[in-house]
Amino acid sequence: MAKSYVYREVVGISTTSIEEAIKNAVAAAGQDAVSWFEVLATRGRVTPEGEYEYQVTVKCGCINK
Amino acid sequence: MAKSYVYREVVGISTTSIEEAIKNAVAAAGQDAVSWFEVLATRGRVTPEGEYEYQVTVKCGCINK
Amino acid sequence: MAKSYVYREVVGISTTSIEEAIKNAVAAAGQDAVSWFEVLATRGRVTPEGEYEYQVTVKCGCINK
Amino acid sequence: MAKSYVYREVVGISTTSIEEAIKNAVAAAGQDAVSWFEVLATRGRVTPEGEYEYQVTVKCGCINK
Amino acid sequence: MAKSYVYREVVGISTTSIEEAIKNAVAAAGQDAVSWFEVLATRGRVTPEGEYEYQVTVKCGCINK
Amino acid sequence: MAKSYVYREVVGISTTSIEEAIKNAVAAAGQDAVSWFEVLATRGRVTPEGEYEYQVTVKCGCINK
Amino acid sequence: MAKSYVYREVVGISTTSIEEAIKNAVAAAGQDAVSWFEVLATRGRVTPEGEYEYQVTVKCGCINK
Amino acid sequence: MAKSYVYREVVGISTTSIEEAIKNAVAAAGQDAVSWFEVLATRGRVTPEGEYEYQVTVKCGCINK
Amino acid sequence: MAKSYVYREVVGISTTSIEEAIKNAVAAAGQDAVSWFEVLATRGRVTPEGEYEYQVTVKCGCINK
Amino acid sequence: MAKSYVYREVVGISTTSIEEAIKNAVAAAGQDAVSWFEVLATRGRVTPEGEYEYQVTVKCGCINK
Amino acid sequence: MAKSYVYREVVGISTTSIEEAIKNAVAAAGQDAVSWFEVLATRGRVTPEGEYEYQVTVKCGCINK
Amino acid sequence: MAKSYVYREVVGISTTSIEEAIKNAVAAAGQDAVSWFEVLATRGRVTPEGEYEYQVTVKCGCINK
Repeated sequence: MAKSYVYREVVGISTTSIEEAIKNAVAAAGQDAVSWFEVLATRGRVTPEGEYEYQVTVKCGCINK
Repeated sequence: MAKSYVYREVVGISTTSIEEAIKNAVAAAGQDAVSWFEVLATRGRVTPEGEYEYQVTVKCGCINK
Repeated sequence: MAKSYVYREVVGISTTSIEEAIKNAVAAAGQDAVSWFEVLATRGRVTPEGEYEYQVTVKCGCINK
Repeated sequence: MAKSYVYREVVGISTTSIEEAIKNAVAAAGQDAVSWFEVLATRGRVTPEGEYEYQVTVKCGCINK
Repeated sequence: MAKSYVYREVVGISTTSIEEAIKNAVAAAGQDAVSWFEVLATRGRVTPEGEYEYQVTVKCGCINK
Repeated sequence: MAKSYVYREVVGISTTSIEEAIKNAVAAAGQDAVSWFEVLATRGRVTPEGEYEYQVTVKCGCINK
Repeated sequence: MAKSYVYREVVGISTTSIEEAIKNAVAAAGQDAVSWFEVLATRGRVTPEGEYEYQVTVKCGCINK
Repeated sequence: MAKSYVYREVVGISTTSIEEAIKNAVAAAGQDAVSWFEVLATRGRVTPEGEYEYQVTVKCGCINK
Repeated sequence: MAKSYVYREVVGISTTSIEEAIKNAVAAAGQDAVSWFEVLATRGRVTPEGEYEYQVTVKCGCINK
Repeated sequence: MAKSYVYREVVGISTTSIEEAIKNAVAAAGQDAVSWFEVLATRGRVTPEGEYEYQVTVKCGCINK
Repeated sequence: MAKSYVYREVVGISTTSIEEAIKNAVAAAGQDAVSWFEVLATRGRVTPEGEYEYQVTVKCGCINK
Repeated sequence: MAKSYVYREVVGISTTSIEEAIKNAVAAAGQDAVSWFEVLATRGRVTPEGEYEYQVTVKCGCINK
């Protein structure tokens, strides 16, 4: 087993759902390297088009190569 | 740009999803005035009919007119 | 059931007891509208007359009319 | 009304949604006894099959029989 | 001396005082086994009869038999 | 002395200093009613013109009239 | 007005009430020097005689002479 | 994989080391059922014999059978 | 190097700036003994003369002589 | 709009003011990439020359290229 | 039993172990007066000689004579 | 002196001791660049071989080159 992991903290964004915002965050951190993730905060806004945009802060535990 | 914003803290309720509870909270705070929102807490209960009810506390940053 | 609640955060004051300070806070938030309350902080001082004054911060969940 | 409630803290797991993970947690705590619940943390991982698995920590307020 | 203690988290309820709500919580956790307790939260509501009901979350350190 | 105070949470903005952002927040809450204030958070951004903009969240204790 | 205050953190104990434990803490910090106080934690135990003992941690703001 | 886990919060005690106190806590929670653990707090005292006693609060994630 | 440091927690006050309030706090803790400091809280009020008064809580790490 | 942001956490240092320490932190994170920032902590020391040095921890939300 | 305790917050330092840093902190607070202690933070550095130095913040509950 | 530092958050793992897990984390962050470190969390598991594995999250303050 690896002896260490590095945390990367990313904000994922989606106008569909909180789950999709999490997936976008993990993808941005490099999904193959992410061993686990933790949701730190959920924020958002209403876009000028009236859509709800979810901005989810995700802390990703990544294999330290 | 506006010089200040006022926070309004609202609990939105939904038996469908956490996202819908957030939308109900923002609507109750006055959606047009809400510039951004933050989810503070997610609570809930099972209703006597066996439905899951989500009660989501949302802090809304509102234009200070 | 109502679809949303609004939080009001109030400081109640009493020289008698913490419970009376809570009641003063809920009354100030409008007791009939308060569905539940949460105590956030208990502070105080000794008055010049030597009495203990309790200042209790109470977060009130109010029906959103 | 009951004079006391006991907290049970459970982690529910789902590859579908956060809401389903919450329901699995409440079911594991004994759904009939759960008067209310609070979401404490949302964590997760990507499974070897590439699915997102949500692990949601839920604190359940249960009737104290 | 015992080598370990188990925490039990209980909500005690009283319409008289915060102290009585604490006592009801400790009694529900099994008073003889409780070596110490910590108050985590104080919440409440106004009953339909206009009484103040205190709901106090108490974390009890219990002998691990 | 007043028996209760109401909290208002406001975000004040300034491109000059944190102190001026605080003053803008207190002014927006109604400076004459503010008995004391607490700084909760300091955020900001760099404007397109390259200026630093401070966004300071201030919790104001206001006389409850 | 004084230019500075010093915090003293004290645990007051009482078998009567939380309020009396607070008073014992403030007295131990030197009541005449205490300008204000804040309750940080409430703990306790059941004494061998079956009495409830409240141990209240109080942070006292004291004039810095 | 199991669909849920239950948290058990235990205080382990040792006069040797923090690590041994953790092991005593996990053993008390039932080591075979513990899938992971988290250290929440480290407290202690000096015994009348002058030994240092470590009291470590450990939150154990246990298979929910 | 010294084997230990003692924390002193002080509130510094200034009507000029947050930085000056910090300096007043450190001076009150005994500037020569202070090896480092941490800002814990920023509070304040508007004085009857309309000045902004900053009250900054500073935790000072002091050489333990 | 970008689908994700990455957080970088930086400590900026200044002997002039807290605002300048924030600017040094944002510059170190790469000012052009920083969409917003949040102040997490303010620490400092008195230099051997008797100057106040502010060490401000700033969490920067950066465009994820 | 004593009616009050005073908290002293101390940083103990050791290049051997966290346990020894705790002991150094308690000794600095006056070991005979310390009824119990709580570990608040563990920090450290690598010395120029390449040794790991542990700096442990310990809050000591002391008899208030 | 350097004008800025960058935080790197790393999880170090050891089956020997918490201290060794810290050292593995600092080594993974690049020991020569680490000016100081802070322990954020201690977690772990029992390995299938019955060994205790400590997983320590360490936040490292690194020189920003």
